[in-house]
Amino acid sequence: MSVAGVGEFGLIDRVTARLSYGSTVLLGPGDDAAVVAAPDARVVASTDVLVEGRHFRRDWSGAYDIGRRAAAANLADVVAMGATPTALLVALCVPADLSTGWVEELADGLGAEAASVGASVVGGDMSASPTLTIAVTALGDLAGRPPVTRAGARPGDLVALAGRTGYAAAGYTVLSRGFRTPRLLVEAYRRPEVPYPAGPLAARLGATAMIDVSDGLLADLGHVAKASGVAVDIDRDAFEVPPQMRDAAQALGVDPYTWLLAGGDDHALAATFPPATALPEGWRAIGRVAEGSGVTVDGSPFDGPAGWDHFR
Amino acid sequence: MSVAGVGEFGLIDRVTARLSYGSTVLLGPGDDAAVVAAPDARVVASTDVLVEGRHFRRDWSGAYDIGRRAAAANLADVVAMGATPTALLVALCVPADLSTGWVEELADGLGAEAASVGASVVGGDMSASPTLTIAVTALGDLAGRPPVTRAGARPGDLVALAGRTGYAAAGYTVLSRGFRTPRLLVEAYRRPEVPYPAGPLAARLGATAMIDVSDGLLADLGHVAKASGVAVDIDRDAFEVPPQMRDAAQALGVDPYTWLLAGGDDHALAATFPPATALPEGWRAIGRVAEGSGVTVDGSPFDGPAGWDHFR
Repeated sequence: MSVAGVGEFGLIDRVTARLSYGSTVLLGPGDDAAVVAAPDARVVASTDVLVEGRHFRRDWSGAYDIGRRAAAANLADVVAMGATPTALLVALCVPADLSTGWVEELADGLGAEAASVGASVVGGDMSASPTLTIAVTALGDLAGRPPVTRAGARPGDLVALAGRTGYAAAGYTVLSRGFRTPRLLVEAYRRPEVPYPAGPLAARLGATAMIDVSDGLLADLGHVAKASGVAVDIDRDAFEVPPQMRDAAQALGVDPYTWLLAGGDDHALAATFPPATALPEGWRAIGRVAEGSGVTVDGSPFDGPAGWDHFR
Repeated sequence: MSVAGVGEFGLIDRVTARLSYGSTVLLGPGDDAAVVAAPDARVVASTDVLVEGRHFRRDWSGAYDIGRRAAAANLADVVAMGATPTALLVALCVPADLSTGWVEELADGLGAEAASVGASVVGGDMSASPTLTIAVTALGDLAGRPPVTRAGARPGDLVALAGRTGYAAAGYTVLSRGFRTPRLLVEAYRRPEVPYPAGPLAARLGATAMIDVSDGLLADLGHVAKASGVAVDIDRDAFEVPPQMRDAAQALGVDPYTWLLAGGDDHALAATFPPATALPEGWRAIGRVAEGSGVTVDGSPFDGPAGWDHFR
């Protein structure tokens, strides 16, 4: 059955029937708007959009994984502020001939990724469109803490990383060259493993700045350096090339550090901490903040691509 | 200059430079997420998406008016819960060859409509896409009141309307037949005049149910009737056909009550009130709630289109 066949309200009924709601949902889908708990009287809110052909391909990823990835991209932004995600809203634009089953699997993926952090899909909108597009808004709660912005890094701070970098970018390259293995890399592209608890944990332990690595580690640390008015230097030795990535890089003629330092789709978290901080679980030191500007690797500019621009 | 020419970050800089921020914005665009005040520890959230060719046409409406309309569609959902809007987030997908000026005008329209209710555009995302798509999420605050849902209407309640119906639908019909006048109707389609203050006002005065009229008055009252488990009867005489609409209807061979009762894009608010309520300013009685189910006009089913389905 196509989405045009069941119609807008039929599709909304099918999707909402598959969703479940956590304790932060005071009023779920079905009215003009949802009502979500915002216990500390502030709400953290972020929107990201995925466009078919630009952010995902249906022949590379199933609907469930695309749903998980769309949710992850937004939930990662919320935890990168030090907040705990509470809710997602989803604006879904789909070709009229798309099967309802595809949309239901997408909803399952969105719901599962949200549920993995205690959040729920509370609302949204659907329309037919020639271009399959998934726009997600994530909400979160700061539990009384100040938000951890990009602007607080200070000279002398440690730079630390939670989660993987380069795996998803390597998987993307593998898929774009027509391969389906190594599985580790392809799966990392299809479904990022975001270190969600690391965000609020870093905030509680005094992180001075934090960012979701979505444009590539060096590009995103560049955003931190610019917003904080500091320089950041990364230790290349802090990054180990896993065997699958080493082999894939060799086979494809790619420098694996391009993936590790400039690939963004894993949604790792990068943060800065005061120098004496004993780094919390899940975080590892990868460099140091200094006076100045810009981002360097072992003291020198990185000789590789800077990041990804979704208009080019 | 095209959006591809300035790039994703260049376009974001151009747009955010044009925005201004009200007192509910604790942290605006530029970080992983925005932080918005949620004074009563709950946040109302709604998402609506507009797709070019389906919800708007660039040859019918300028970018500024499309921006105002995209904001209005979402802000209306928030006030229909009885809440006061605080913030908008916008996911914008644009063809790579679109001019940056068009996007800047769209941002001006979004910002102006938000500012008209004291809200601000606090964040979002941009991507290139073959299909121009504007997904907006609106947040709002209930100021300690319970949300006014669709489910609270009781037999005996008054049915009341704030704002216009039929004007935008008439304007749409006029434009779709190749005309550009009457100006009153065409302008109503291009830029809805939403009765924003009427939403929180109705909530304070005890409205039992409320809805934004976006699918058409009868279809939306059908949502209220279904959610509340009641019947709704509308008085046809409560609707006056303005002269411009009467003339356009005659010229185009349309029953103007089709526009008045089944046209939705004006974003009027419909609500139910306890029988003895002295209706607040901006609201007028248009019917009555009864035992039963469904929506009737002067006691009979309406012989016309039921509403709009965005998949068909």
